[in-house]
Parts: sequence; C-alpha cells; structure tokens
Amino acid sequence: MFKKHIPQSTVYRLSIYLRELERLEDRDRVYISSRELGNRSGIGDDQIRKDLSYFGKFGKSRFGYPIKGLKRNIRQILGVNNKTWHVAIIGVGNLGTALSSYKGFRERGFLIKALFDNDSKKIGRSVKDLKIYDVKHLIPVCKKEEIDIGVITVSVYHAQKVAELLAGADVKAVLNFAPTRINLPHRIKIRNVDLTIELENISFYLANQ
Amino acid sequence: MFKKHIPQSTVYRLSIYLRELERLEDRDRVYISSRELGNRSGIGDDQIRKDLSYFGKFGKSRFGYPIKGLKRNIRQILGVNNKTWHVAIIGVGNLGTALSSYKGFRERGFLIKALFDNDSKKIGRSVKDLKIYDVKHLIPVCKKEEIDIGVITVSVYHAQKVAELLAGADVKAVLNFAPTRINLPHRIKIRNVDLTIELENISFYLANQ
Repeated sequence: MFKKHIPQSTVYRLSIYLRELERLEDRDRVYISSRELGNRSGIGDDQIRKDLSYFGKFGKSRFGYPIKGLKRNIRQILGVNNKTWHVAIIGVGNLGTALSSYKGFRERGFLIKALFDNDSKKIGRSVKDLKIYDVKHLIPVCKKEEIDIGVITVSVYHAQKVAELLAGADVKAVLNFAPTRINLPHRIKIRNVDLTIELENISFYLANQ
Repeated sequence: MFKKHIPQSTVYRLSIYLRELERLEDRDRVYISSRELGNRSGIGDDQIRKDLSYFGKFGKSRFGYPIKGLKRNIRQILGVNNKTWHVAIIGVGNLGTALSSYKGFRERGFLIKALFDNDSKKIGRSVKDLKIYDVKHLIPVCKKEEIDIGVITVSVYHAQKVAELLAGADVKAVLNFAPTRINLPHRIKIRNVDLTIELENISFYLANQ
C-alpha cells in the first residue's frame, strides 16, 4: 500500500508518537514541534521527521505539526481508526485470563470472539461472557467467528502446534506470548511479546550504572 | 561505564542477537557471519556491526563472529551472566500471578522475593511459596528483602501511588505493566511494557497488506 518499505521500528515509533499526542493535556493547542514531540517521547527530532516523511508531509516548517491532524493521520496509518479485528485467545491460564479482560484490545478495535483451552475443567465455562471452547474445535470455531488474530498464551511445548491450528483456520496474524519462536507461512504476520528482552534491558542499566 | 552513550534500541537488539545465538542448532559451529545473524534476526548486517562496535571488536573479518565468545560477551554486557536482582511484584491479579511463575525471571537472574496486594482476601496467602504482603507494608518489606526491581501489575488508578512507594523503598528500577505513564525520580529506571504498541503494530500490517 505504501510506496516504500516501512521499517518495523518506524511503525513502533508511530505508536509512541500517537501515545504522546494523546497525552497532551492542553486540548486547545493546535501545533507541536518535532523537538517537543521528541523531548516527550525520548526520540530525536531528526528521527521523528524521518519516520513521518514515509507517509507524506504533515507539518509546516514554522509551526510544527498540527496536533489533531497528526493524531488522525497516525491512527489512519496504524489502522486503529475505524477497523475492527476478530481475536481468539488460546490458553486460558493466568495470562490468557488477564488478556481477555484487557481494555486495550477493544479500544484499538480488537474484539475477542473466542477462548480456547485443552483443560476439561475449563472447557464450557465462561470468562467475561466468553465461552471457553475445546482447542480441538479451534479450526471450525475460528472460521465461524471469522477470527483475524490468534493470541497464543499456552506453554512453550504447545505453542507451535497451536500456531499451526491457527494457520489452518486462516488467521492473518498471531500474537505469541509463549517464550519460544514459532514458524508459520509468510502470509501470517507473527509478533512475539518477549518479556525476557525487557528484563535484559533493565539488567543492562542496572549492571552498567 | 561505557565511553559512549548506548542507544536503547541497541540494547534491545543485543537481546535479539543473543536469542538467535542461543537458538543455533549446531553446537559445534565456531563462527557466524553478520549476514547470517542478520538473516536470522531480521536485522540488517550493517546495523549488527554498528551495534556491536559500541562494545569493542568481536569479529574477524574473514570468519565472522566467534559464537561462544559473542554469547559470553553479550551476556556480560547485558548483565545476565552472573548477577542476581531481587524483585517484588505489586498486584497479585491474573497478570501478577502469571508473572510470579514466569521462568524467564529466574533464568535471567531475577529472583522474586515478595508479592504485594491490597485485597484482604489475598493478603497472607501464598503463590508459589511466596507470601502475599499488604501493600501498606511495602516500604519496610522491600527494604528488608533488598528489592532492586518493582514490577507493577496493579490498575491504572493505583500505578503512580505504587510507583512512589517503590521509590520510597529505594528500588533501582520499575517494570510497569499498567497501561499508563508513571513519573519517578531519574535515578530509577522505568521500563513500560505497552501491549497496545504490539496491537497497533499488528493492526498496521493487517490494514496495509
């Protein structure tokens, strides 16, 4: 859709810019400079200008970026403006349960449509009005609910198998919380949430302070 | 400790390189080229050479990087080689409970020493042999257990208050899972785990495919 390849790090930073723009207290302000957006987000203003230039020309050199327009544009680029996606969570342990009540999903247009587990004590019960299905029925249920995104919160040992079931159900993306790499056809976008990286990042600063 | 300022994105990528090196199947291999490490990690080989150059000279131009030495060096840089850190988790809901049994903590030298909650039904109970303390006693318990890192898994409304208690207990770093910004003195390193960014990243790819 875009002329150039957009680096993944640019997409991440767009989220950070959007978050900072949403946090601006003064609702009547019209413009923000790349320098101020940089100070707030901890990202250099050169980088901000470069990131935004992938998507067109948003600012006026003397005034900076129009805040409302930039928010609207970034939401549009990120696809969180008006689209909704259907989500299934596989693995209703503590993490899966925590995610099933995570407000951020709904706010960004991610609607949880189904939960799955392999534990007979959980199957048939409900969490937040969502029925827990037997993972054996993942493919037909996901097809029926037109699931776009599968969220994997099972153990390392089951992650790849669950990922393959999700591929069989034609999901478009997988958000993987299991601390292991999963392999899927290229057409399916995989995002890994790797908490170890956060821990190592903290460790780096503690060890080198 | 290092001569130059190390960008946070470089520290993140070190974790990714380490993960890929740890995943190499052939244990007898001696060298890996920056190109292969780049292909495996999805990061350009120019970037890899630049990132590693902050910390010295690791490779030989004709052979590439010695795998064992590079792993050892990155672990050393990240401080996950031989150091241990004491961790407290505040908020024993689904997410806090999930984290308290997260293996990655112990593997990276993060030892969970205390759990806190404000719910009288939870206080005094145990999760994985760890007693849940009343959050009212956070400061003395954290000081006694010499807590280095506080992990915040309370609601948005309590996050800042808990962060300030942790500052009062002289923690060195905070890992914040509450989807809100917390403000603390600069001496305390804050890492926010913002799931919304992952969701927006997926949304970007789905909307623009």
